[in-house]
Amino acid sequence: MKRDLDRLMQQRTLDAIMVNGSSYGNPALYYMVNGAKLGRAHIIKRRNAPPVVIAYPMEREEALVSGLTVILSTRYDYHRLLKAHQGDALAATAAYYRRMLEDQGIMGGHVGFYGLQEQGEAYTLLQTLAAAMPALEIVGEFGDNLLQAARATKSPEEVARIREVGRRTIAVMRGTVAFLQSHAVGSDELLYQADGVPLTVGDVHAHIRRLLAQEGLEDPEGFIFATGRDAGIPHNRGAHDAPLRLGESIVCDIFPREAGGGYFFDMTRTFCLGYAPEAVAQLHADTLACMNQVYAALAVGEPLRRYQPLACASFRERGHLTIADNPAALSGYVHGLGHGVGLDVHESPSFSDAPDNIGNLEPGHVFTVEPGLYYPERGMGCRLEDTVWLDEAGQLHNLTPYPYDLIIPMR
Amino acid sequence: MKRDLDRLMQQRTLDAIMVNGSSYGNPALYYMVNGAKLGRAHIIKRRNAPPVVIAYPMEREEALVSGLTVILSTRYDYHRLLKAHQGDALAATAAYYRRMLEDQGIMGGHVGFYGLQEQGEAYTLLQTLAAAMPALEIVGEFGDNLLQAARATKSPEEVARIREVGRRTIAVMRGTVAFLQSHAVGSDELLYQADGVPLTVGDVHAHIRRLLAQEGLEDPEGFIFATGRDAGIPHNRGAHDAPLRLGESIVCDIFPREAGGGYFFDMTRTFCLGYAPEAVAQLHADTLACMNQVYAALAVGEPLRRYQPLACASFRERGHLTIADNPAALSGYVHGLGHGVGLDVHESPSFSDAPDNIGNLEPGHVFTVEPGLYYPERGMGCRLEDTVWLDEAGQLHNLTPYPYDLIIPMR
Repeated sequence: MKRDLDRLMQQRTLDAIMVNGSSYGNPALYYMVNGAKLGRAHIIKRRNAPPVVIAYPMEREEALVSGLTVILSTRYDYHRLLKAHQGDALAATAAYYRRMLEDQGIMGGHVGFYGLQEQGEAYTLLQTLAAAMPALEIVGEFGDNLLQAARATKSPEEVARIREVGRRTIAVMRGTVAFLQSHAVGSDELLYQADGVPLTVGDVHAHIRRLLAQEGLEDPEGFIFATGRDAGIPHNRGAHDAPLRLGESIVCDIFPREAGGGYFFDMTRTFCLGYAPEAVAQLHADTLACMNQVYAALAVGEPLRRYQPLACASFRERGHLTIADNPAALSGYVHGLGHGVGLDVHESPSFSDAPDNIGNLEPGHVFTVEPGLYYPERGMGCRLEDTVWLDEAGQLHNLTPYPYDLIIPMR
Repeated sequence: MKRDLDRLMQQRTLDAIMVNGSSYGNPALYYMVNGAKLGRAHIIKRRNAPPVVIAYPMEREEALVSGLTVILSTRYDYHRLLKAHQGDALAATAAYYRRMLEDQGIMGGHVGFYGLQEQGEAYTLLQTLAAAMPALEIVGEFGDNLLQAARATKSPEEVARIREVGRRTIAVMRGTVAFLQSHAVGSDELLYQADGVPLTVGDVHAHIRRLLAQEGLEDPEGFIFATGRDAGIPHNRGAHDAPLRLGESIVCDIFPREAGGGYFFDMTRTFCLGYAPEAVAQLHADTLACMNQVYAALAVGEPLRRYQPLACASFRERGHLTIADNPAALSGYVHGLGHGVGLDVHESPSFSDAPDNIGNLEPGHVFTVEPGLYYPERGMGCRLEDTVWLDEAGQLHNLTPYPYDLIIPMR
């Protein structure tokens, strides 16, 4: 949580941090400016001091929305610096950063830099800044960095926002099922529209888009509604022209965000229209059994990397191949168990079983649990996914109150 | 254009490039994989050779959509590298990059790195890679980099996509005007909804969101519909509770993107409901005069930095203060003249008059022209903005066929 920043900075021996860029598509800055919509800004925070935001004059009002102390960028006069450096934008930008840092009393010490930037540009700029401020130790954190660590545990206000996105996401899932059910079934087991044309996956995609907009959600990374063999490939989004057919597995995975930027939600259900073939019902039962085993084992203080092996063991017991047995497997259980959800759809905590994933489950973690089984060569796949929250008391809350029912009854 | 990549690489003495990250919210990778939706991938391209994409097995099918040669990431076995480096993810990632590069025959030479990444992480990773591959010269381009330069000029296919986004954006603008006109005007000059409640800016925002969704557009950076004094602050989005009132200046600036990611469009109109006060009409006339002076002067081969002074001179002649006279000005003409539009809403070319902006107008450039005048203390502002295109023959095409009319007649 944000209130942990000073403690986390101390743990990481950071004297100060600087966060740069836009608040659009850049969770580090969005987080630090409390969602204020800034096209370009800089945050500087010393340990045990409140952050300040340096904003452009055009965005001065929006910057105040952050609740932080606002400094206008004109104070550091980039244009004069550019002239002083004979038009060398790199040198001028390093000098500009230096002015901003020194104005906050930061002449040296360990300083971390955050926010998305073109990787080559970040490399060159921070090298140039290091040369311009020899007393400064630039800390480039690799992997789970300070802000990602703070963001991994959610405050009650953040949980309330995620829960609300969840409520709307569930409304989209429910509306999708109702849309499917509103169609007639032909003697060929295909679904038909009122005009006698078969309903396609593309039609369902269009309807899901309408439902998302209606619920005030945006969909920056796309959703999955894939049938049959396509449902057997985890990231296949569904074939536009494929008809909807009774008895095929359908994977519906929706992960939208608050419109205008903010928090994500992520959930998946697997359906069969009308009836479920034995093999698909077995996949679904095995996936649900795995999910329940994982839920029973989730507890604050447990190592995060414990759960992927647990899921693999659950599937192996039921006769499925897993990536634990073959990292290149394309059939069986072939992906990770879950991921944190927040300003990014995939963020900390990670449930990777890699040796470097050394954290534990903590109060405030919001994350998905999403076991799945994939058999593209047998024309089927199944995934179930909830977003859940561990509260301050270590109690697990499922933020996804929607049934796991496999079969969608048709008229 | 993409076909210029080899030429631009030669100019910049780049032997190879590597582009990393997701294709969501990361135009460099989106561009190189031709819009394929990949959660995480690497592109390697040697000069005068086609690019290859390294993709995760789960995304193998989507990777093929790129039309590029696909290599599965499992070939480079990150997990084994992580073990070999005792769980040190930084060292393992540098070794993984090295494997990918060497597999493409890149043992040294000048290599540029692109794509958005956390800035501290990029700094550390590229430093570690440089240490691991001493023959490699890592090029971190600052400012307008290779891919941004290539993207600045659009192919006919890209222009067709932007034009189509423009057609839909204009439909949203037209629908917004029709929505305003559908309301009754009270004797207090406020607009009223059918239930007798005054229409607010928030209501109009909600309607614009509906129109955007209806047109298959997403709105990742938000739009502006701001009235009166708020219209006098360039990036003010409009006050939710403000009522709509006759005779106030309204700035409506919409810059949506193709749903699911892709190309942006950007346009602004300024309106007055019912009638326009003399002062607002003057702002509008002065803005339009400036716009027409700029249009008359746009020509291939002209220096990009020539146009901002031209716009400033046009406004100064008409008695307005500009940022040319006072870089910290908050009244008058207080921002830049325009920007390239493509996979980013703000991209190259830049019309900055800074000394380092040394490029010229080129065939294929797609950009905005957006003069504006702002007087928040007088409760008004005005901006007009089109997206335009210079074709291969140097002919200017306005992609924004929508009138500049200030007054929206009301019943």
